[in-house]
Amino acid sequence: MKKAQSFSDKAGLPPGSLIHIGCSEPNATMISKIEYSANSLKESKDLTTDDLRLYTDDLNTWINITGLADVDVISTIGENFGINHLVLEDILNTQHRPKIEEFDKYTFFTFKMLRLVKGKKKIVSEQISIILGKNYVLTFQEQHGDTFDSVRNRLKNQIGKLRTRGSDYLLYALIDTVVDSYFTISDILNDNIQNLEDKIISKPSEELLINIQTYKKDLRFLRKTISPLRDSVGFLCNSDTNLVAGGTTLYFKDTFDHILQINDSLNEMRDSLGSQLEIFHSNLSHQMNVVMKVLTIIATIFIPLTFIAGIYGMNFKFMPELEWYWGYPTVIGIMVLVFVSMIYYFKKKNWI
Amino acid sequence: MKKAQSFSDKAGLPPGSLIHIGCSEPNATMISKIEYSANSLKESKDLTTDDLRLYTDDLNTWINITGLADVDVISTIGENFGINHLVLEDILNTQHRPKIEEFDKYTFFTFKMLRLVKGKKKIVSEQISIILGKNYVLTFQEQHGDTFDSVRNRLKNQIGKLRTRGSDYLLYALIDTVVDSYFTISDILNDNIQNLEDKIISKPSEELLINIQTYKKDLRFLRKTISPLRDSVGFLCNSDTNLVAGGTTLYFKDTFDHILQINDSLNEMRDSLGSQLEIFHSNLSHQMNVVMKVLTIIATIFIPLTFIAGIYGMNFKFMPELEWYWGYPTVIGIMVLVFVSMIYYFKKKNWI
Amino acid sequence: MKKAQSFSDKAGLPPGSLIHIGCSEPNATMISKIEYSANSLKESKDLTTDDLRLYTDDLNTWINITGLADVDVISTIGENFGINHLVLEDILNTQHRPKIEEFDKYTFFTFKMLRLVKGKKKIVSEQISIILGKNYVLTFQEQHGDTFDSVRNRLKNQIGKLRTRGSDYLLYALIDTVVDSYFTISDILNDNIQNLEDKIISKPSEELLINIQTYKKDLRFLRKTISPLRDSVGFLCNSDTNLVAGGTTLYFKDTFDHILQINDSLNEMRDSLGSQLEIFHSNLSHQMNVVMKVLTIIATIFIPLTFIAGIYGMNFKFMPELEWYWGYPTVIGIMVLVFVSMIYYFKKKNWI
Amino acid sequence: MKKAQSFSDKAGLPPGSLIHIGCSEPNATMISKIEYSANSLKESKDLTTDDLRLYTDDLNTWINITGLADVDVISTIGENFGINHLVLEDILNTQHRPKIEEFDKYTFFTFKMLRLVKGKKKIVSEQISIILGKNYVLTFQEQHGDTFDSVRNRLKNQIGKLRTRGSDYLLYALIDTVVDSYFTISDILNDNIQNLEDKIISKPSEELLINIQTYKKDLRFLRKTISPLRDSVGFLCNSDTNLVAGGTTLYFKDTFDHILQINDSLNEMRDSLGSQLEIFHSNLSHQMNVVMKVLTIIATIFIPLTFIAGIYGMNFKFMPELEWYWGYPTVIGIMVLVFVSMIYYFKKKNWI
Amino acid sequence: MKKAQSFSDKAGLPPGSLIHIGCSEPNATMISKIEYSANSLKESKDLTTDDLRLYTDDLNTWINITGLADVDVISTIGENFGINHLVLEDILNTQHRPKIEEFDKYTFFTFKMLRLVKGKKKIVSEQISIILGKNYVLTFQEQHGDTFDSVRNRLKNQIGKLRTRGSDYLLYALIDTVVDSYFTISDILNDNIQNLEDKIISKPSEELLINIQTYKKDLRFLRKTISPLRDSVGFLCNSDTNLVAGGTTLYFKDTFDHILQINDSLNEMRDSLGSQLEIFHSNLSHQMNVVMKVLTIIATIFIPLTFIAGIYGMNFKFMPELEWYWGYPTVIGIMVLVFVSMIYYFKKKNWI
Repeated sequence: MKKAQSFSDKAGLPPGSLIHIGCSEPNATMISKIEYSANSLKESKDLTTDDLRLYTDDLNTWINITGLADVDVISTIGENFGINHLVLEDILNTQHRPKIEEFDKYTFFTFKMLRLVKGKKKIVSEQISIILGKNYVLTFQEQHGDTFDSVRNRLKNQIGKLRTRGSDYLLYALIDTVVDSYFTISDILNDNIQNLEDKIISKPSEELLINIQTYKKDLRFLRKTISPLRDSVGFLCNSDTNLVAGGTTLYFKDTFDHILQINDSLNEMRDSLGSQLEIFHSNLSHQMNVVMKVLTIIATIFIPLTFIAGIYGMNFKFMPELEWYWGYPTVIGIMVLVFVSMIYYFKKKNWI
Repeated sequence: MKKAQSFSDKAGLPPGSLIHIGCSEPNATMISKIEYSANSLKESKDLTTDDLRLYTDDLNTWINITGLADVDVISTIGENFGINHLVLEDILNTQHRPKIEEFDKYTFFTFKMLRLVKGKKKIVSEQISIILGKNYVLTFQEQHGDTFDSVRNRLKNQIGKLRTRGSDYLLYALIDTVVDSYFTISDILNDNIQNLEDKIISKPSEELLINIQTYKKDLRFLRKTISPLRDSVGFLCNSDTNLVAGGTTLYFKDTFDHILQINDSLNEMRDSLGSQLEIFHSNLSHQMNVVMKVLTIIATIFIPLTFIAGIYGMNFKFMPELEWYWGYPTVIGIMVLVFVSMIYYFKKKNWI
Repeated sequence: MKKAQSFSDKAGLPPGSLIHIGCSEPNATMISKIEYSANSLKESKDLTTDDLRLYTDDLNTWINITGLADVDVISTIGENFGINHLVLEDILNTQHRPKIEEFDKYTFFTFKMLRLVKGKKKIVSEQISIILGKNYVLTFQEQHGDTFDSVRNRLKNQIGKLRTRGSDYLLYALIDTVVDSYFTISDILNDNIQNLEDKIISKPSEELLINIQTYKKDLRFLRKTISPLRDSVGFLCNSDTNLVAGGTTLYFKDTFDHILQINDSLNEMRDSLGSQLEIFHSNLSHQMNVVMKVLTIIATIFIPLTFIAGIYGMNFKFMPELEWYWGYPTVIGIMVLVFVSMIYYFKKKNWI
Repeated sequence: MKKAQSFSDKAGLPPGSLIHIGCSEPNATMISKIEYSANSLKESKDLTTDDLRLYTDDLNTWINITGLADVDVISTIGENFGINHLVLEDILNTQHRPKIEEFDKYTFFTFKMLRLVKGKKKIVSEQISIILGKNYVLTFQEQHGDTFDSVRNRLKNQIGKLRTRGSDYLLYALIDTVVDSYFTISDILNDNIQNLEDKIISKPSEELLINIQTYKKDLRFLRKTISPLRDSVGFLCNSDTNLVAGGTTLYFKDTFDHILQINDSLNEMRDSLGSQLEIFHSNLSHQMNVVMKVLTIIATIFIPLTFIAGIYGMNFKFMPELEWYWGYPTVIGIMVLVFVSMIYYFKKKNWI
Repeated sequence: MKKAQSFSDKAGLPPGSLIHIGCSEPNATMISKIEYSANSLKESKDLTTDDLRLYTDDLNTWINITGLADVDVISTIGENFGINHLVLEDILNTQHRPKIEEFDKYTFFTFKMLRLVKGKKKIVSEQISIILGKNYVLTFQEQHGDTFDSVRNRLKNQIGKLRTRGSDYLLYALIDTVVDSYFTISDILNDNIQNLEDKIISKPSEELLINIQTYKKDLRFLRKTISPLRDSVGFLCNSDTNLVAGGTTLYFKDTFDHILQINDSLNEMRDSLGSQLEIFHSNLSHQMNVVMKVLTIIATIFIPLTFIAGIYGMNFKFMPELEWYWGYPTVIGIMVLVFVSMIYYFKKKNWI
């Protein structure tokens, strides 16, 4: 919830000011580049902005910038590639809403990579921004890490069609990697929710309610992350931009299907949590009812018995029963009778 | 809920990799073929992919592949018929969302066949994928079984218009069979829900609540299965693809009506379950209230009586009543009076 | 709820098979015909299909078929008038969803006539199918009865514009009759719901809850029946089919307004039932609370008093109070004091 | 709720029959006329239908008909001005849904004027129908009264632009008057709801619940009245009918804004009532809980004390404590100790 | 809630009357003007309407009117700039719904600036109206204050692109300032809601419920303020008015994104409040249950014990136990046994 707050710190500054906005210290900015064609690949790391000035026309270039600490570097890259100032601002604002925006010479995407922190309890998101140009792709990651390693490996090892197709297919591969991360999160969340269901049926407790609310929050977070991406990818499927070739559109449709499937799955989880909440409340009140019923029944049985004892505890001078030899056993007998009939009556009524 | 989880195992692989995705071991792949025209029919079973290479232009061909274990076989068939790689991937992913996708030379459908397992308690789904070409239909079933036997028999015995019409009509017959399976499921579910209603009114118990939640889950599952099919069939009704003849469109409209009717019926069941839940909670709390009221009334009646007895159990030296000859009967009389008036009062107040 | 179940019995039959589908035995099929123009009218009853073969071009013809038992007769009529096989199937399926379908030479409507069975407790529906041709109207009623007698009388007695206008106006008169039946049902239901409201405020009981749920079901049933008709009539208002003359469109708009008004009224009833449910639960829990409070107060008052009595029931040898002459009256006085102050306190706190 | 019921009495009559439909006796029909131009105005009252036959082309004419008792008069007026029969029917049906309908030579509006009956408790509605022709406006009011006096005065006293603009501006002034009546109602309702809120927080009682439900009903009634008018006025803003001049459209947009504002205000009230309901239930149950807790605590404290007294009320021969000289004070001391520690414990636990 | 009420005071007046409508006394009207181009800027304060008559064509002019008390001044300004009378009415009505309206020569905006009053408890809104002309911007503020100081400073100090771009960019800067105020409010509200959550989990109390309802009201207020602005800005993004240059559209898109983000954040808060309400009710009823359970258990344990004591308090002549030497200790022993077993049983059952 630090998000908007830090954003509001920007109030008063002229719009378009390049400032890093985010919850945590930004990572140092590092640049790497992969130039590839069907039969060649050249990777260079730890570049400076000067190394990026030129890029050859017959190669596809993937420039990966990790860490958003160095605003100047990002600003320079923006200038080199003719990126609009507002886009750069969006890249630096790591709390930006996922979106897609088309420009004349490039298309800009921003969305979230999701990851579970160790201990598998909290979902963290990392902002990924991608700029797709004619034969280049710029990716901006918030943190250093192995997010796109699988794509990098496929490029290097010539797995799949990555090398033979254009930058639009690289874009697809990157987005697909992100969507896969959603699958992983959604699966783990699903497992947790299923486990919770078993616990709630067997032994409802107050902590489980907090759990339900936490998972609900997680679901809302996932939905908030995924639903703008669905719109973006849906836009790519139907767009006739010349940056995405017709053949690649089909792949984006496939990704779109995946997002819809995750969405279905989120809906199911939400409904499942709703059911669990109902069962939880019902079980808890059932337990309470059982306890109160038993307790009340015990009291109800002994109160009349105590009354009988009370009668013969009275000190009247003339109480003939008190003098009888069988008086005491008779009263005890009556008490047993009352006790047994009450038990029998409650049993018959199904109260105990 | 294994679904998405197994899907996420695919994360990291290049997209378009042909891998079987599903909860259970896939069945072995078997191929059968029926070639038919208005006045001839030839059925051949246990074919290999080589047998499928050619197909005559003036016959309609229905090739049925059951079991998705042999990825190579399916891949070869895909190549033979010029099917896109991504479509083959969708066929093998038995947890894919139902959908329709049009290509230049064929249209691809995937949806779920529903079946109740013995004991009529659990709904299982089988993925059916259909490729409709110019004069051929490819059907992919997840499991061996008699799913399409009724269509096969009608073809063989020349019942209805199947033999005289094209492959689009065969597609219609197949989809109609699937929709009929939905009717069966929806009817059984409806019966169960009606039965549940009677039980809930007569004798609410905690297990019935679990039942309500289970039926709700079933309804959600049905809706999730049926609603994309509605869109697919609705698309067929309005599409102007040259694979579906104008005359057949009318039949798809009929199927569309059926799906709407099932949908109406699902909505009704959902509302019915909602009502049941309300009655359930109200009945349960009513029962509890009755019990507590009776118990409390018993206690409330005897507590003042016990107090009276307590008074005359006091050991004061100077308590004139104790000496009276009629003291004891008088007190007993007062107790009876108090008892009767309280009963009368509670009766009048409608509390008992 | 027999509906879909009997429909599912059709599973396995080739589509387009003419079979009567319905809950009850179909009535025997009877055919009557009215040929009319502005200045002539000829009615003939108990016709056979042979009598229907020709119909003159300068007369409007209304053929009314009641009872759907004789599938052959209906099939023959269908052939004579060039009605599509699927339409005939829909006419025979008395559980079909209301709909409108346009064909080249005729338009097909199916919807429900509503009627209250004697004792005014249960709503029954009868399926009405209408085929509007160039200068003829075919009506198919599920049951014999006087459904359309008012229209027939107006035709015979030259009331209104029925005789002077074409078959489209006859269609309007028939649909208007059906919509009037909805008004009647909706009014009775409305009265019942208003009556229920008074009862719920004055004396909530468990049966009233069942009543609320029953009326809710009735409302859903009405809505399900009316809302597809709204779409059909709305379609007629905007359609430019040459079967409906421009002047008649205005009349359909009027009917459309009526349907909207019924719809508004249904919405109001639904909201009213929602309010009643809230008041019901609140009243019931209020009643319960009052009872429990009074009972608990009685117990609460006597328990401390009993304790005081208990003290002086103790058998200690040295209890000076017991020896006092005014001991007993003093203790009784204290008890009265405690009693009165507790009553006073509870009164002040507004608990009794 | 008499509305639809009386409407259903019409069932069986040919459509388009002119009959007054309404809850109450219709007022006698009275006709008045105002002819005006920028610099002249002539008002005439208590006219007959004959006086209406001609109207000059260079003047704007406003004919106001109050009271719908005389169906013949209204029918004659309809004929004189070439009004469609169905429109006249709608004018006479005072329970008609608000709507707008365009015809070749005129536009027809019907909507509700709202008024609070004395004692400010019940909202009553009066149907207003307006027919806007080329240079005339016909208004039909259900009841005699001063509804449009403010407009009449502005016309007479040349206030604002009424005299200089055409009949469309007169229409705007009339509708604006009606919308103002909505503001008045909505404000009073708003005040009432705000007052209710204070009461609910300070002292919830069962009657307040009935109040909430009554206000909810009022809100639904208002919404039902206002929302079709919004559509009508919205239609006027965007329509390109030649009856409404371009310059006047702007005024209708202003009215449209006002209706939206009332709508916002209704939404707010609905949400506020929802909140109140929540607070009501929560407060009521809180009160109940407090009572029950106190009562139960009293019982809980005295029951163990009574037990102690009961022990020393036992008549065993050999109970050494009974013989002790300090026995009695010791037991009383123990009782006080138990009492104080229980009070302390409950206080610490925050139970009292 | 005074809003609509004061508006309804206007009922009866001719539409278009210029009257200030608002909750509080309007501030005195003050006019200031800034004329600027890329390399010059001239600010003049405390102007009269005469000073505004001319404005040079090659400069951008920003005229800021604060305080709406002097209706004549505003009316004169309106005449000078050819502003429609209805627009002036909207400017003076400080309770107007936010909206955008395009005219031939200018575009009119009205929306709310939000501010927190000291003590950060109550949100107050100030109406801002903006008229964007060819090379001038008129801003109308309800109150004197520093609302637009940041923009003024940027203009003076040549920060950002304000000086070099046209009046449309100035409009953007002003709207951006307003949206920033929404961020601030939304952040503070968010913090408050988060804090509330912690309190509700740790210690639910009745006041927290009032808090939840207050925050809900604030959220509704924010949403009501923001959602029309979203539509206005969305309209600007897509409009092709020649008042907004193509390049500036991009900036409005950026603002649109910000509004969407606030909207997301409001949705999240609403859901969070919903969760809190659930936890609140659950916690409260849990606390109550715990109390009642403990109390009932105490009573339940001592009632049977008291009964045992009652038995041996009976005065029968022949009760052998009373004579036994070990009678008393035995009974005490039995009591202890009963006590311990009940405690053990309740512990085992997890009731205490």
